Amino acid sequence: MSKYDSLTKTPVVDIHTHVYPPSYISLLKSRSSIPYIRAFPPSEDLRLVILPAEDTESTSRGRPVGPDYYDIKNKISFMDTHNIDISVISLANPWLDWLPAEEAGPIAESTNNEIDYICSKYPGRLFFFATLPLSASAPTVLAEITRLKTLSHMRGIILGTTGLGSGLDDPNLLPIFKALAAASLPIFLHPHYGLPSGVWGPRASEYGHVLPLALGFPLETTIAVTRMILSDTFTLVPDLQVILAHSGGTLPYLAGRIESCIGHDSHLKAENKLGPGRRTVWDVLKKNIYLDAVIYHEMGLKTAIEASGEDRVMFGTDHPFFPPLGGDKEWASVVANVEAVKGALGDGKAAEMAMGGNAVQVLNLI
Amino acid sequence: MSKYDSLTKTPVVDIHTHVYPPSYISLLKSRSSIPYIRAFPPSEDLRLVILPAEDTESTSRGRPVGPDYYDIKNKISFMDTHNIDISVISLANPWLDWLPAEEAGPIAESTNNEIDYICSKYPGRLFFFATLPLSASAPTVLAEITRLKTLSHMRGIILGTTGLGSGLDDPNLLPIFKALAAASLPIFLHPHYGLPSGVWGPRASEYGHVLPLALGFPLETTIAVTRMILSDTFTLVPDLQVILAHSGGTLPYLAGRIESCIGHDSHLKAENKLGPGRRTVWDVLKKNIYLDAVIYHEMGLKTAIEASGEDRVMFGTDHPFFPPLGGDKEWASVVANVEAVKGALGDGKAAEMAMGGNAVQVLNLI
Repeated sequence: MSKYDSLTKTPVVDIHTHVYPPSYISLLKSRSSIPYIRAFPPSEDLRLVILPAEDTESTSRGRPVGPDYYDIKNKISFMDTHNIDISVISLANPWLDWLPAEEAGPIAESTNNEIDYICSKYPGRLFFFATLPLSASAPTVLAEITRLKTLSHMRGIILGTTGLGSGLDDPNLLPIFKALAAASLPIFLHPHYGLPSGVWGPRASEYGHVLPLALGFPLETTIAVTRMILSDTFTLVPDLQVILAHSGGTLPYLAGRIESCIGHDSHLKAENKLGPGRRTVWDVLKKNIYLDAVIYHEMGLKTAIEASGEDRVMFGTDHPFFPPLGGDKEWASVVANVEAVKGALGDGKAAEMAMGGNAVQVLNLI
Repeated sequence: MSKYDSLTKTPVVDIHTHVYPPSYISLLKSRSSIPYIRAFPPSEDLRLVILPAEDTESTSRGRPVGPDYYDIKNKISFMDTHNIDISVISLANPWLDWLPAEEAGPIAESTNNEIDYICSKYPGRLFFFATLPLSASAPTVLAEITRLKTLSHMRGIILGTTGLGSGLDDPNLLPIFKALAAASLPIFLHPHYGLPSGVWGPRASEYGHVLPLALGFPLETTIAVTRMILSDTFTLVPDLQVILAHSGGTLPYLAGRIESCIGHDSHLKAENKLGPGRRTVWDVLKKNIYLDAVIYHEMGLKTAIEASGEDRVMFGTDHPFFPPLGGDKEWASVVANVEAVKGALGDGKAAEMAMGGNAVQVLNLI
């Protein structure tokens, strides 16, 4: 019997929750091109600008950066307000993608150490997904993966969609994926770059941040994981485990179409890519993919659960993003995700597992 | 009692099925830049090249264009093979978007007349969605809408996502949308341009046509309809009816996230765009949107049905695209969509309505 089985209550676990630790804030403040943090006079409030599309003179430039971003006490307070027992925190985008090669290794090491230390201050309540120095050489990345195993609160890796610069279907990533699979470290795959801004059209700025956030993020994730599937990543690294942010982008909804397009593609057939050894989208969803439940409605969540399995879906909040505009203590965005789980799974054991039990077991949190 | 109620069997209706009528084939053959049709020696087989990404010297250049594309006898034979009673045919992409302004009006008129004539040869079995001369002036478009009402087999309009060149959230489209709503002519919104090819990464050509077809198409539709929602199109034209291709792209799955992002956007709040008069994504899905059932799996289709309603989902095939690679008479892509309907709705009345009854009633086919 594991320690988990002896618990009287299944803990609530938030697996999608971000931090900008103080050293990372300092790093961003020292920069003058994106990503950066600065004040735009006459205001003295600091703003975080992380996307090219928002780096223009307008009132919607970036977003305010308050203590919710960097002070772990605010995270704990947020957890207490929303009855969250455990958070698996991760560095927020854009992670370390932009660092010069020679700086990436040391900064990844210090950042991961800093977040591990932050977790240690709240025993049993905080774990984290670490960050890799992807702009450095592959040996540096592999060395950091080995070193990470010594950090007692580390439970996986947060990864963007660019990989080493050519996306996640880059064969040069396979040694890294194999090392992660061998170490049983799941990837938390998270979007950042969205889509080229031209697709939003000339009126995009009238709609605030809606198009890049509501569509750019999940569509980026969908493209990234589909490229991984098409490049046979999960056939070549069958034990690779990937937790997809935002309930997989749109992968569960499009799975049928993707499989149909693969099965009807004359080029793939000519290349003998449609044989019986292939791990299909459906196989990958059941064997390699976990989905967070950050989807804000039970309707999509039901599809996510059917696609991946009741035991493969895990609650998350996306804190500190999407705070209530009215300043309410309880966040509507969190309530929507809790209600989505209850609406999709009811009030019984399955909902408890999605709210935390699955994360405890998959990420070995207790 | 309508004629429909007196039927002993609900007809099976295919609302997503394309034609390239002979005059359109001739038009494409006369061109030397995309979209065009030509043979690439030494082969004498004609190929259709419609996307910039496929206009390169390679074996996968475009797609073969056989009689399934232009000979209506093949369409009827396909319908008979698959027990389809009625097809609502539409000109295949890229429609007339590329025509010079002065040619668009006359060519739209002759193309629509030609397709209406084709329908007349198979009484009761063929209807069509007409094409608008969008590269001409708005008065030309409005005149064609008025004229179309005289074509007895016309039941709506097929529309791409570019509109007059600035997308479907262009305020200059509102008079056209109002004219369509006033004439009770639904729009069949269909993708063509996909996403900028850079998003597929350097290995995209290794995956045949999968990424632009499986993801580019539905993501383009999702962006287009979300831009319509954000520009208040459905608040301004509350009777506008839009049938979304490929089960709405990904709109049903992302509806919760889109609504949450809208409700949390400080710019939209500052602009007083979040008031009670707003037609939400959920409202639009129930009041303005119909979804075809071209999604190849019951799992996504269940979400589509829950989002829009059992009475708002309609079977389709996407013929002549996605033919069986092995040359089977029965098409696997069609079987997948039939099975999706049965899997989602069972064998009873609801499935019959999705397979044809809804289309009969919405498009007034009997």
